[in-house]
Amino acid sequence: MSTNENILSFFALGGINEIGKNMYAIEYANDIVIIDCGNKFPDESLLGIDLIIPDITYLIENKDRVKALIVTHGHEDHIGGIPYFLKKLNVPVYATRFTLGLIEIKLKEHKILRESKLIEINANSKLELGKISVEFFKVTHSIPDCLGIIFRTPEGNVVHTGDFKFDLTPENIEERPEIHKMADIGKEGVLLLLSESTNAERAGLTPSEQMVADHLEVAFMNAERKVIVSTFASNVSRVQQVVNAAYKTNRKLVLLGRSMLNVVEVALDRGYLNVPDGMIIDQNEMNAFPPEKIAILCTGSQGEPLAALARLSTGNFRGVEVLPKDTVILAAGPIPGNERSVTSIVDNFYAIGAKVIYGSGSSSGMHVSGHGYQEDLKLMLTLMKPKYFIPIHGELRMLHHHRLLAESIGVEKGNTFIINNGDVVDIEHGVARQTRDIPVGNTYVDGGDVGNVGEFVLRDRKQFSEDGMLIVVLTISKYDGKLLSEPETISRGFTDGTFSELRKNVNELTAKTINGLQEENRNDWKVIKREIKKSIQQHVFHQMKKKPMIVPIIIEI
Amino acid sequence: MSTNENILSFFALGGINEIGKNMYAIEYANDIVIIDCGNKFPDESLLGIDLIIPDITYLIENKDRVKALIVTHGHEDHIGGIPYFLKKLNVPVYATRFTLGLIEIKLKEHKILRESKLIEINANSKLELGKISVEFFKVTHSIPDCLGIIFRTPEGNVVHTGDFKFDLTPENIEERPEIHKMADIGKEGVLLLLSESTNAERAGLTPSEQMVADHLEVAFMNAERKVIVSTFASNVSRVQQVVNAAYKTNRKLVLLGRSMLNVVEVALDRGYLNVPDGMIIDQNEMNAFPPEKIAILCTGSQGEPLAALARLSTGNFRGVEVLPKDTVILAAGPIPGNERSVTSIVDNFYAIGAKVIYGSGSSSGMHVSGHGYQEDLKLMLTLMKPKYFIPIHGELRMLHHHRLLAESIGVEKGNTFIINNGDVVDIEHGVARQTRDIPVGNTYVDGGDVGNVGEFVLRDRKQFSEDGMLIVVLTISKYDGKLLSEPETISRGFTDGTFSELRKNVNELTAKTINGLQEENRNDWKVIKREIKKSIQQHVFHQMKKKPMIVPIIIEI
Repeated sequence: MSTNENILSFFALGGINEIGKNMYAIEYANDIVIIDCGNKFPDESLLGIDLIIPDITYLIENKDRVKALIVTHGHEDHIGGIPYFLKKLNVPVYATRFTLGLIEIKLKEHKILRESKLIEINANSKLELGKISVEFFKVTHSIPDCLGIIFRTPEGNVVHTGDFKFDLTPENIEERPEIHKMADIGKEGVLLLLSESTNAERAGLTPSEQMVADHLEVAFMNAERKVIVSTFASNVSRVQQVVNAAYKTNRKLVLLGRSMLNVVEVALDRGYLNVPDGMIIDQNEMNAFPPEKIAILCTGSQGEPLAALARLSTGNFRGVEVLPKDTVILAAGPIPGNERSVTSIVDNFYAIGAKVIYGSGSSSGMHVSGHGYQEDLKLMLTLMKPKYFIPIHGELRMLHHHRLLAESIGVEKGNTFIINNGDVVDIEHGVARQTRDIPVGNTYVDGGDVGNVGEFVLRDRKQFSEDGMLIVVLTISKYDGKLLSEPETISRGFTDGTFSELRKNVNELTAKTINGLQEENRNDWKVIKREIKKSIQQHVFHQMKKKPMIVPIIIEI
Repeated sequence: MSTNENILSFFALGGINEIGKNMYAIEYANDIVIIDCGNKFPDESLLGIDLIIPDITYLIENKDRVKALIVTHGHEDHIGGIPYFLKKLNVPVYATRFTLGLIEIKLKEHKILRESKLIEINANSKLELGKISVEFFKVTHSIPDCLGIIFRTPEGNVVHTGDFKFDLTPENIEERPEIHKMADIGKEGVLLLLSESTNAERAGLTPSEQMVADHLEVAFMNAERKVIVSTFASNVSRVQQVVNAAYKTNRKLVLLGRSMLNVVEVALDRGYLNVPDGMIIDQNEMNAFPPEKIAILCTGSQGEPLAALARLSTGNFRGVEVLPKDTVILAAGPIPGNERSVTSIVDNFYAIGAKVIYGSGSSSGMHVSGHGYQEDLKLMLTLMKPKYFIPIHGELRMLHHHRLLAESIGVEKGNTFIINNGDVVDIEHGVARQTRDIPVGNTYVDGGDVGNVGEFVLRDRKQFSEDGMLIVVLTISKYDGKLLSEPETISRGFTDGTFSELRKNVNELTAKTINGLQEENRNDWKVIKREIKKSIQQHVFHQMKKKPMIVPIIIEI
């Protein structure tokens, strides 16, 4: 790698050509600084996988050079991989007060909080990490205390935007973007800009959070009975807006869902949330108040089947019931892929007779995105006026749209690099090149099993999930390899119909296969299994147009 | 049921509280007329299921009263169940020329075309089905030759809209909605209106197909090299627009994908499509023309992994390659649930370096919905001014929105029925009531297995797909129930990591469980299996946080 040379390098271990699993690295000479370490949730093709985290083989091989992990903000796709990372590489973690609160919850769950090195920073901190100096600027997003990062190296300045939008009237005025700092660094000179691309396909400027506050207030005013609001727990501004609307309409607030309770606790503890004394009550105290004096704030806005909102919608939340004329507000947009789960919950609430306020994107007025639209992205590019640009944090088409935006504000054609995870962009003597890569990949977390579930296991799960399995048990003689009794056929996940006919055929086929073997293969289990699989598979497909997994088991006695 | 009584009844066997599997029925006295018989594609929770069709138990029990199946149009969610239905109940099928063409393809595949009774009708046909007289009116949708239906009964008139929008400038002028006929029946009097609800959540009026024609033409003009357009094969208007744009830019047209070839053949045969002689060429002839003289029209606009578009995007379509600077147009919006499959294809084309024109809904100008928005629905309601209204063809929230639309144009509150599949609305002496229901449900098609894959099979598939399976084979003595050798543990879909330690523990646990059994349970296989399952499950969960399916197999010798 670039050791002993004064080369400035950038690469991603995750987050490019995907949404999620963000992990980026800046290298200068002997020093490596990591930015974020997120997870990603699997799509439905990855059967049984719980989480995906970045493969950090490269960092382990270069562990003495890794100086720090800097975390831009506390969303799962930026912090969800940290416990797994620290178990392998216990480097200092720098993050703001609120972000650290969320990281600590995770490290506690993984029982590694004590040995971890967590260092609190704020937007005015300055760090010296080997030859790399680091400063920060505030950005506005959908979680408190977010940072953009300035890396100063002898080769030049690199800016990483974090996740951002330009909301000039956020719920908390302290969260306003530090535009003057951004302008200053732009004036000083930015060699390389790394900017997030989530909403690069969407025209215009993100609406302000203020819009949601206004709509929530009106909905609370009009609600005849209790109000149930679901949003991301980490969206503390949204939580504050719900608190405000409840306060104005004289309602007590009940919190439901573990992550809601966790995050509100962190936010209250650390001063990110303002709640009048006595306003939050326990769900057991609810019945002491009439329904028009109650508001519920809960998790599950993405349709997660085990979260509070889904359980409320099916009457399966112990002690809390949604009734006709209650008002249910979905104050979060569905993430792509979650639409159907969310709308089925909306349907359930309609079936109850509740009033439901929902909508895609910001159409209901109850949600605005935390990621800047095209005009936000252009403003960042304009402030930074970088020489080189790498769009990050997005799928490929978003990166391409972002490149066009960069070119539209004057970044030279050819100075934008569309890269993949693992591609390394090296800058030396002011010239950037992408010619090499490092190993990267997906590490699957399956329960307590990290990194051991791969291609073979997933292929078996897929085959079984489509057509089930036939297990055929053969008892054969260790002397002459002959069948000692009828084979036994057991099915799982195959059919609820009778298949005695098929079972008979399978047994006959098996016997025929065994007896038809050449003498020299009589005790070669590999051959026996292969032949049995083949003949049964053909027969079953012919009969039923199904392809179950065939598992022959041989007992030799 | 209502035999011997002069009651008019309506119910749905599918299509309500869901998108798909449309099947409705009108009963009057002894006569039952069925409207449509569709299928639905399973969501990812129904592992391995290929199709869902309506459960027609009620119709089979009343088969002598079923007079006919009338089909409004040829989409899968209206015709996909027909082969399965006719195998059980061979009633006459009435449909328009184009719709029959598509039905015939299906019946051929199921080898029942010859014995089926298919009767061609058009918008001017009149049928007498027992005491029910039937007339029709044309509606505009996203497939040719669509019908709305008027049922005249002694109790009053019932109108079923079919799927519709009001496009006054469709690609084919013959497809214009017959507004005068609709006005006439409204004037005559509509006792009950059944109207589709797909887009009841969307404000405004559907844009005209004309918009797409204009955008396609511009895109073809600007294309530097070959153009690839993907759309629903059944959207013959869209196909015609592509033909027109190709003709204007002097391009030959190549068709890819089985259903595209099938449907275009039907459309050409039956005169629904106008293509200049020699314009359609075989894919083998492509190389004789320069790329700027080629257009490709293909299936796969929903991201189906085996369809032409997905294979083109990954370079896996034999003989056809998409190259840099080719133009790819997605001329169909993604159906909810398909977004991620579609965008990953878009990303693949970006990776190739192609120009991609895509967008959600009608944002790219390359797609308009075939289902009327709120203003279309209000126009239908206004024309029909029904006494009673039942919103059909939609999920629950859509039906609720549709009810509000009906009330907004003057349908009396209380006269709209929001029903479920199976609920029966009876009208007698001009008064409608919903007090009874008939059995309905989902029939799963799994390969050649129709109706035999249910709860148990799906539960096994789900458990396996999440954590795989451990098979434990025990050889025990038939005399004293004692283990004769080490148990054998085989895993599938469990882990790719080594688990020799776990296997050892499982064997020990098994031996311990067997030896710890009470004397009287020694040969009770049910008890043995239950105890082994329990102890292994606990152990594996404790060690690995996984819950594989445990299958003990006992061989007694």
